[in-house]
Amino acid sequence: MESKQIPSLEDIQKAAKRIGRYIHRTPIITCSSLNDISGTDIYFKCENFQKVGAFKFRGATNAVLSLSENELAKGVATHSSGNHAQALALAARNRDTKAYIVMPKNAPSVKIDAVKGYGGEIIFCEPTLQAREETLDKIVKKTGATFIHPYNDTRIIAGQATAAMELIEEIDGLDIIMAPVGGGGLLSGTSLATAYFSSGTKVFGAEPAGADDACRSLHSGEIVPSINPKTIADGLLTSLGSLTYPIIKKYVSDILTVSEENIILAMKLIWERGKIIVEPSGAVPFAVALQHQDKFAGKKVGIIISGGNVDIKNLPWIK
Amino acid sequence: MESKQIPSLEDIQKAAKRIGRYIHRTPIITCSSLNDISGTDIYFKCENFQKVGAFKFRGATNAVLSLSENELAKGVATHSSGNHAQALALAARNRDTKAYIVMPKNAPSVKIDAVKGYGGEIIFCEPTLQAREETLDKIVKKTGATFIHPYNDTRIIAGQATAAMELIEEIDGLDIIMAPVGGGGLLSGTSLATAYFSSGTKVFGAEPAGADDACRSLHSGEIVPSINPKTIADGLLTSLGSLTYPIIKKYVSDILTVSEENIILAMKLIWERGKIIVEPSGAVPFAVALQHQDKFAGKKVGIIISGGNVDIKNLPWIK
Repeated sequence: MESKQIPSLEDIQKAAKRIGRYIHRTPIITCSSLNDISGTDIYFKCENFQKVGAFKFRGATNAVLSLSENELAKGVATHSSGNHAQALALAARNRDTKAYIVMPKNAPSVKIDAVKGYGGEIIFCEPTLQAREETLDKIVKKTGATFIHPYNDTRIIAGQATAAMELIEEIDGLDIIMAPVGGGGLLSGTSLATAYFSSGTKVFGAEPAGADDACRSLHSGEIVPSINPKTIADGLLTSLGSLTYPIIKKYVSDILTVSEENIILAMKLIWERGKIIVEPSGAVPFAVALQHQDKFAGKKVGIIISGGNVDIKNLPWIK
Repeated sequence: MESKQIPSLEDIQKAAKRIGRYIHRTPIITCSSLNDISGTDIYFKCENFQKVGAFKFRGATNAVLSLSENELAKGVATHSSGNHAQALALAARNRDTKAYIVMPKNAPSVKIDAVKGYGGEIIFCEPTLQAREETLDKIVKKTGATFIHPYNDTRIIAGQATAAMELIEEIDGLDIIMAPVGGGGLLSGTSLATAYFSSGTKVFGAEPAGADDACRSLHSGEIVPSINPKTIADGLLTSLGSLTYPIIKKYVSDILTVSEENIILAMKLIWERGKIIVEPSGAVPFAVALQHQDKFAGKKVGIIISGGNVDIKNLPWIK
């Protein structure tokens, strides 16, 4: 599997087999109260229950397990201060190798501690994109570690695709599957798995209006970069990649955007009625189901809840 | 089934069959992070995912379904401002009959709205025990409705017992099962199910130190009333009943108490690491596993999470 080609059906099946003993097969839950509110028959694939609290552990594990023994011995590297950093750190530790994580020196201590907790080696840099890339380059040259991009990588996309694959295996006859979109790793994987394993099911992306670069990219026909995005859904700030964009363009029916108000409402409803902790990014697809009810009412819809890593001391409905 | 006898093995099996199509068979989850923190191998039976958000729906449904057609036509009645009120309202609505719920007129509007939302008919009274009982008496005399006590009732206990029965069916070889104790409906049912279906498993009750009447009752050999209890675990304020007490005395190994600080810590850890919403009362058994680690470390322990109804705008770790 090259790191820059579109994953095949077999790539996804192999990824599922490869990562099976490391990941959780997460539960799929339904909630009659959320169904009543949205007028939709929703099946939530709960990646908030995944290890490290997010789907990112699927792709990171698949990437690490795809390395040769020689590559593996030199470790892996990435720049991220989010769930990918934690996921890669744990995936590396599971194979007794090193993860070098480049993080801006102003990253929140809770994120630094989480990566350290999974055994990641953190290299701090200035909080600019240039410093981040230069620092990563240096680390890779120095250590020989393999750079694992957070989303623009075949192995990552094939890994993320396994969540939708499991959803399709367990729930028959879904009209629609919906996933949030940031860099597009989860959405591109979801759309591929759906095309391969349930071709009658449509795929929609869910995006905050305050970070709507993927929606604009899809509609304009070229990658529109994400500039100064503003949203509480901090997992969805990045731009599409050269690999994720063409997959999304080909296999995703549309990307629908939602207001900040509806993201917070959706998150609050999932907490109160569904009794599960989801992070703001994870609530964006349900927010779409609420805000665009005309497209979803009466339909059977699978939603990938991307993660549940949220600071419970700092909640948007408590001022 | 008389309403004041100890449920038999058959009573519990019949209850499970009777309520099967109305209740959720709730999931059992494990969390490696919570296992690491407590040093214990824990299986959480998630009644926070039960309908109305609490185990109470099992007992209420069993009680309503145990009525004769003649009784059923006249409805059911209770006094409660908590989960039992909501549970009985929904159980009655499911059988197209009335639920008369006596509530103190100063009950929080969120609880009043919840009962109304399930179709319960609320009768307000002065906020005293005497007014509550007198009002209930009047309603029962006037309507002919059957009084369903929140816990001191064979049908309720048999219904609550089905949660532990399901846990035992799915998880082999539990050393210990733990449930919180207020009036004792859940704990007595749990201890009976365990004695009948897994006699090698010990049962412990979990109680806030600030409402330790059940612990003191067990140790003194008679029911000690709960006077001015003070705890955040608002589902555990009541005293044991004449029916729940002898069951607990016979079948429960011990009742262990925990500090308020540890209840809040346990609740926070279950939210942050387990990614599920539990109410303070539901976190009390895990608090016991943390505070009394000597009794649980290395053991295989089933914990009944009683419910997940909590005001997410008012959390104990946010001042």
